[in-house]
Amino acid sequence: MSFNTFGRVLRFTTFGESHGPAIGAVVDGCPPGLDLSEADIQPFLDKRRPGTSRFTTQRQEPDAVRILSGVFEGRTTGTPIGLLIDNVDQRSKDYSEVASAYRPGHADYAYDAKYGFRDYRGGGRSSARETAMRVAAGAVARKVIPEVRVRAWVEQIGQHPILYSRFDDAQIDNNAFFSPDPVAAEQWEKVIDAARKDGSSLGAVVVCEAEGVPPGWGAPLYAKLDSELASGMMSINAVKGVEIGDGFAAALASGEGNADPMRPGVDGPEFLANHAGGIAGGISTGQPVRVRVAFKPTSSILTPVETITRDGEATEIRTKGRHDPCVGIRGVPVVEAMMALVLADQKLLHRAQCG
Amino acid sequence: MSFNTFGRVLRFTTFGESHGPAIGAVVDGCPPGLDLSEADIQPFLDKRRPGTSRFTTQRQEPDAVRILSGVFEGRTTGTPIGLLIDNVDQRSKDYSEVASAYRPGHADYAYDAKYGFRDYRGGGRSSARETAMRVAAGAVARKVIPEVRVRAWVEQIGQHPILYSRFDDAQIDNNAFFSPDPVAAEQWEKVIDAARKDGSSLGAVVVCEAEGVPPGWGAPLYAKLDSELASGMMSINAVKGVEIGDGFAAALASGEGNADPMRPGVDGPEFLANHAGGIAGGISTGQPVRVRVAFKPTSSILTPVETITRDGEATEIRTKGRHDPCVGIRGVPVVEAMMALVLADQKLLHRAQCG
Amino acid sequence: MSFNTFGRVLRFTTFGESHGPAIGAVVDGCPPGLDLSEADIQPFLDKRRPGTSRFTTQRQEPDAVRILSGVFEGRTTGTPIGLLIDNVDQRSKDYSEVASAYRPGHADYAYDAKYGFRDYRGGGRSSARETAMRVAAGAVARKVIPEVRVRAWVEQIGQHPILYSRFDDAQIDNNAFFSPDPVAAEQWEKVIDAARKDGSSLGAVVVCEAEGVPPGWGAPLYAKLDSELASGMMSINAVKGVEIGDGFAAALASGEGNADPMRPGVDGPEFLANHAGGIAGGISTGQPVRVRVAFKPTSSILTPVETITRDGEATEIRTKGRHDPCVGIRGVPVVEAMMALVLADQKLLHRAQCG
Amino acid sequence: MSFNTFGRVLRFTTFGESHGPAIGAVVDGCPPGLDLSEADIQPFLDKRRPGTSRFTTQRQEPDAVRILSGVFEGRTTGTPIGLLIDNVDQRSKDYSEVASAYRPGHADYAYDAKYGFRDYRGGGRSSARETAMRVAAGAVARKVIPEVRVRAWVEQIGQHPILYSRFDDAQIDNNAFFSPDPVAAEQWEKVIDAARKDGSSLGAVVVCEAEGVPPGWGAPLYAKLDSELASGMMSINAVKGVEIGDGFAAALASGEGNADPMRPGVDGPEFLANHAGGIAGGISTGQPVRVRVAFKPTSSILTPVETITRDGEATEIRTKGRHDPCVGIRGVPVVEAMMALVLADQKLLHRAQCG
Repeated sequence: MSFNTFGRVLRFTTFGESHGPAIGAVVDGCPPGLDLSEADIQPFLDKRRPGTSRFTTQRQEPDAVRILSGVFEGRTTGTPIGLLIDNVDQRSKDYSEVASAYRPGHADYAYDAKYGFRDYRGGGRSSARETAMRVAAGAVARKVIPEVRVRAWVEQIGQHPILYSRFDDAQIDNNAFFSPDPVAAEQWEKVIDAARKDGSSLGAVVVCEAEGVPPGWGAPLYAKLDSELASGMMSINAVKGVEIGDGFAAALASGEGNADPMRPGVDGPEFLANHAGGIAGGISTGQPVRVRVAFKPTSSILTPVETITRDGEATEIRTKGRHDPCVGIRGVPVVEAMMALVLADQKLLHRAQCG
Repeated sequence: MSFNTFGRVLRFTTFGESHGPAIGAVVDGCPPGLDLSEADIQPFLDKRRPGTSRFTTQRQEPDAVRILSGVFEGRTTGTPIGLLIDNVDQRSKDYSEVASAYRPGHADYAYDAKYGFRDYRGGGRSSARETAMRVAAGAVARKVIPEVRVRAWVEQIGQHPILYSRFDDAQIDNNAFFSPDPVAAEQWEKVIDAARKDGSSLGAVVVCEAEGVPPGWGAPLYAKLDSELASGMMSINAVKGVEIGDGFAAALASGEGNADPMRPGVDGPEFLANHAGGIAGGISTGQPVRVRVAFKPTSSILTPVETITRDGEATEIRTKGRHDPCVGIRGVPVVEAMMALVLADQKLLHRAQCG
Repeated sequence: MSFNTFGRVLRFTTFGESHGPAIGAVVDGCPPGLDLSEADIQPFLDKRRPGTSRFTTQRQEPDAVRILSGVFEGRTTGTPIGLLIDNVDQRSKDYSEVASAYRPGHADYAYDAKYGFRDYRGGGRSSARETAMRVAAGAVARKVIPEVRVRAWVEQIGQHPILYSRFDDAQIDNNAFFSPDPVAAEQWEKVIDAARKDGSSLGAVVVCEAEGVPPGWGAPLYAKLDSELASGMMSINAVKGVEIGDGFAAALASGEGNADPMRPGVDGPEFLANHAGGIAGGISTGQPVRVRVAFKPTSSILTPVETITRDGEATEIRTKGRHDPCVGIRGVPVVEAMMALVLADQKLLHRAQCG
Repeated sequence: MSFNTFGRVLRFTTFGESHGPAIGAVVDGCPPGLDLSEADIQPFLDKRRPGTSRFTTQRQEPDAVRILSGVFEGRTTGTPIGLLIDNVDQRSKDYSEVASAYRPGHADYAYDAKYGFRDYRGGGRSSARETAMRVAAGAVARKVIPEVRVRAWVEQIGQHPILYSRFDDAQIDNNAFFSPDPVAAEQWEKVIDAARKDGSSLGAVVVCEAEGVPPGWGAPLYAKLDSELASGMMSINAVKGVEIGDGFAAALASGEGNADPMRPGVDGPEFLANHAGGIAGGISTGQPVRVRVAFKPTSSILTPVETITRDGEATEIRTKGRHDPCVGIRGVPVVEAMMALVLADQKLLHRAQCG
């Protein structure tokens, strides 16, 4: 409920800039007694880590997380969990161009308009580097919801979607693109290589699904589960669209075509479809919670773009240096983290009100 | 930041059920000294009011709002503004079927799973009737942002979009569908009549644009302007998708194709495109803020759908009685209200931090 | 966490002015399934109601509360509970004096300084009339904590304290002063009569105790149980001091004298003293939670007091019309309500985090 | 509004335990463009720092603060300010006794009751070590309110008060006790030496005054300036009572005796008294804001006290090792910090609503 804090009962607060000494997060409200160590968090950070393939930025950050508080003898104590990652590879480049001119599509102009000036080194606070702390916080959140399995994948890069007929869960971590479709992964390799060589960039769609969410999580009306997910996903850098279940496709459907009929099942109802994405009236139904997230292509491209300087003069800018040709790819662990954080928060909220 | 409260500095809280005695809202944090009377609010409620054409539910509600507090001698005092609308046309129908069986796609099952029981009369709290209070609160919010012009329209009903080549702002309020395209409006009339006769329903896409938003509103990272808008829009009944600017289309674009180049303008920069929807890094850029919202077709249809009873037995249900064949239409003033509420809140937040 | 909202998980929001059409509250986050009707709330309002004896203001308000939402078939549904009380006896007196001059000790000047103008009729929003809604909300909160017995009493009026050697719980509701000491009650009758005749006013100290609070409620560090109680109590009109346990007397004690030794008891520890007032480290210990609250004498007195007009001219003012000679008396049910509201909120918060 | 976060618009979140690797804070919502460096924060930390005289704990902590984010080229950027202090002197003592038995008056039992176990090293999260981060955050808050002068002093130690006839502002920083009365300071030296030698402890009263607060800060009803101060002060370790203005003494006064008459002054009204402590109706009046805070004697004493073990067995405990004989002394900079933090937050809130 605040500028740099997310969540209501399980809350996390992040701080830090792209080229400052460190980035950090405080996870507050975590239940006590959960096993937690750096080793529980690091694997998720490693999934998001830059510099691991030629398809991501070449910045080299080990992203080694340290737990500074809230854990004692290997278990959470219920007090705030301080997490810190030192920035290591802040390349001492010349920032004079980006300091004096606004990169279109970046936050440069908006930050200056709001704050009067900005930390322009690597995008400062607006850098996607902040998402590392979401991933770290998300790893803590996963501990709060052991009954839930959260997984995300890339569904589309640019104009190249996967085929769901080739969907193979086991493939997701077997390629550099979090693709569940190995054929699409091969195609994407070429597409991204081409974009990278051209100094261009590509958008992507990420899908995230949470299985095992029991019915009853979510807090109507303004903390609806879907509303919280929309807020959380839309706060991720470069995200421009969020869908729950069928999303915009639902707007094309008829009431009959969009129905999720129910039958008696072994354990509560069995649903015959999941157009709703596991949420009705803002509350989970027990079906998988499903979200689609659109990432725009990063605005860091080599093609010169018309822009203005801080002094309002016309100029052109092109982004040299290290960047992701498709930021959506590394968005996968971030989307997963936000899903876990929202669900964990709602689990605790539900427990608060309904026991 | 709470279940039935939205906003951070300018907050509103709603209460009330579809068939209870009244629905209400409390708008807190409103600046003092603004002219405000019921006459400022009623026109927006009238736009949303049911029973005004055959294309909406036939429930007859005058939706006459009363201001109970926070206004003195025609001006806001800075204290909470209590708003109340009496429910008038709660038809005393037989609710036994919906009480004992779950309507798929509605919140029936989810509410029962969460709360153990539910007010089943007309959907209780999960009814879109609550959105009247958002519209009332939104009318107050508009007073806070006189510099901004908020308007929304229906872009698509079912599979029938408007043509932007025929876009005429003046048409929006001239037809029962908030269509800026008079040709589409005629087509929709037939489409909805058909759906209504079949007891079916249709989805819709609503677009909302806010002009006059100065650069600098928005609060990174977790109160980003786009994040707040996503949260607010997704909390509206039947909404399943939210896009900012190009939204999912941005995922298909290249970095070049998605750029919003800037030139020196008369009053700050002139932008050559608005793929971003007026927001960069979570902060307004001065361009029109543009949101697209997907409404699903209502699940209240005459076709019987498989479902279960509260006792877990198999049954079928079909929704008799009054309902909207296309809830997205009446969503237009609600979407506008949420836009105004988010912007007003962010205006005040910006003033708090940046003076 | 907002201007007119109190609480974190169980929250209430109030609205309304002394001489507006109505005052109201929204209680949000209440657990579902609790028995609740107007009859559960009215007795607490009747305790606080004005005009019941010559020792309180002569304004006649039935304070009949209506539940507008959140209750179905006699039970809370988990949705927001709307509560409304119509104002009945807003005497149409001449407000020109108080409109144009500031009553020292009242909020008149401060409201004008903040908001630029004010609803001066009966104090507007700053009137203690608002506390009726706290009492109503508190009655709901009591339902959330059936394990807790909350009771308050007047310990002192002006310079006349009760004797604890005469403390008799059963006496509290047997006199007009909530005095557990019948001898003090008789004395107070004379003291207040004298003050009333002189057009003067008296301060009071109210003590509130909650028995049955289990160990473990409270949320360090900034939602400590004592911190929340201090905030809640200090927000009551005319309150100028709050103590937990021994309060300021603890500052005079030595560590030995302030110790609360523990012994093995039947049901957890048995404490040999309760200097701490039932709270350690911000968390309940299982002992009675004890708070002392200081009410100043109301500033509404007949003696002329030097002041200034809205235009900054020197003048004198004396308060004619109806007022309480000792507002602390009617503070008793308000203090109880705030205790219940804080405890109920903390019970739910504890359940959220610790299950 | 959360467990370890304080404030509404200017918020700070703290983390860290007494014997963990570090303690930290995140200050969020700070206005941009303020000059800020470690040198602005360190002097306040030095005032609170342990080990500087024989009258405080002998733990040696340099309390060197590092700014990790939110500052660029010497000025705040408007993004969250991360602050970190490494713990240096966590003495590797034997904690077996405090791990297995509860120290009465400490949070030991309450933490165990709430969380199931606890970090017992030096009190873990419940240690007053956390207050270092409040002091650091408070130094940032002071930058937000340059128009305000905040100062606190010790008014009483045990049963030994200062004489206000000897009050000398310049003396406060000239002795180890923050005493404005040099005679009292000499007396206290003996009193505390005696307590220290006896292994006993003493309570204290701290007074804090803020001059220069303009009229209009404060947000009725549940964010009243006095309510916020009460909450903030009562959240400090060992605090058991808070008074605004005359506090409990006001309860003894008559309406006439408690009046703060007003006269036309040069710059708004001139007040003839300040019984109210600078706050009316929850809003500042322009007079000095004055708070009194009661600190209990620490429960860390050498005299054995009856208690129980974690297993519920009877035992005795006495606190060996380093501790403050009078924690109230080092409370002075903490009280000042909370005053500054509340005022800065309310300044921004006021700006949000009232422009």
